[in-house]
Amino acid sequence: MTDSTDSTEPAVGAPERRPGGRTARVRAQVLDAVRAELAEAGPEGLTVEGVAARAGVHRTTVYRRWRDVGGLLVDVIAAAGEMDWQPPDTGSLRGDLTALNREIQESLVVRPSFAVALMAASFHSEQAARAQTRLWADRYAQCEILVERAVARGELPARGATELDARSLLIAATAPVYHQVVLLRADPDPRLPERAAAAAVLAAAAGAFSVPRTEGA
Amino acid sequence: MTDSTDSTEPAVGAPERRPGGRTARVRAQVLDAVRAELAEAGPEGLTVEGVAARAGVHRTTVYRRWRDVGGLLVDVIAAAGEMDWQPPDTGSLRGDLTALNREIQESLVVRPSFAVALMAASFHSEQAARAQTRLWADRYAQCEILVERAVARGELPARGATELDARSLLIAATAPVYHQVVLLRADPDPRLPERAAAAAVLAAAAGAFSVPRTEGA
Repeated sequence: MTDSTDSTEPAVGAPERRPGGRTARVRAQVLDAVRAELAEAGPEGLTVEGVAARAGVHRTTVYRRWRDVGGLLVDVIAAAGEMDWQPPDTGSLRGDLTALNREIQESLVVRPSFAVALMAASFHSEQAARAQTRLWADRYAQCEILVERAVARGELPARGATELDARSLLIAATAPVYHQVVLLRADPDPRLPERAAAAAVLAAAAGAFSVPRTEGA
Repeated sequence: MTDSTDSTEPAVGAPERRPGGRTARVRAQVLDAVRAELAEAGPEGLTVEGVAARAGVHRTTVYRRWRDVGGLLVDVIAAAGEMDWQPPDTGSLRGDLTALNREIQESLVVRPSFAVALMAASFHSEQAARAQTRLWADRYAQCEILVERAVARGELPARGATELDARSLLIAATAPVYHQVVLLRADPDPRLPERAAAAAVLAAAAGAFSVPRTEGA
């Protein structure tokens, strides 16, 4: 993001001049290999050599561009953030949050799960943890539009002296899905995405997640 | 659990005849060492040799009783389950859930955090993951009394054809705290324990977490 254009050494993971050129192809091959190795063996099993072999590139190429396993993890998380992801738009807050939760649950229960592998990696590497924190912050920020739309539609009460803390509402709606699948390792409950969404909407309608207007300013 | 009483080899992590005797002392020393090593270096840094050295016992003692790092992790999680833990009893559901969330948040933000180290270990070892799943299931089961007391006090509406799914309510109340601190790695918000508790209580009062009576039977 901040590397100067006349730099001769590309920054770790930064795209070079020709998108779609050889550099982009190598990056795609290497990151595919990182995802496959992560899903198969977890972050402890990740090595530059293993990634290079699976990607079919020379390991010095990997060392030069990504330096180490931490650099590979950061770039695979950055690539997830570059995906053209759009939050759902079903016409109601409950529908939107249910669709979001279904997408989350799906990404967590598929085997092997890249999403779970990334979380495991964030326990393993401080660098990966920071990259993942940025990715999640971006995704929750993107989802605030769901709450804004619901307020505009009049689905949630507008209150004079308070405003709705959209992020708290989004976390209340989505956290139970992560909690059940990732931390409690319960069998995925197909009704949970809708139930967790409905509970958060009921709480919001009853005045939860309202904060004094000055607080967020 | 299933080892026969005339076995000459004690089961992995099973207490022997004389609680408080040498066996119990060795177990306490070894598990203290596991907790310290986990908190310092994480599950990847855990070795039988390191634990034995820190505990001041011979490594063959550790190998004989716990077999490997997986056995140590399982026993340290089992020991957490043996703690005489009682859920809070403040007189209101909101107060109880707030107190529970404060306890959870405290255990997650203290540095080094044994609770976070255990979660990291559960990504690392299938054995540790299963032991942790059992521990969490026990803790949530212990907490169902909070919801039962609230229903008995008339804080939550009794509904003819439905009953309250206590576990879903408890997960809705507590999941945001884990989500913020462990997965999102946000700075701990001192208001979150109460806010997450309040949101879950509002949702429950509005009819969330109600399931048809037949479903749970």
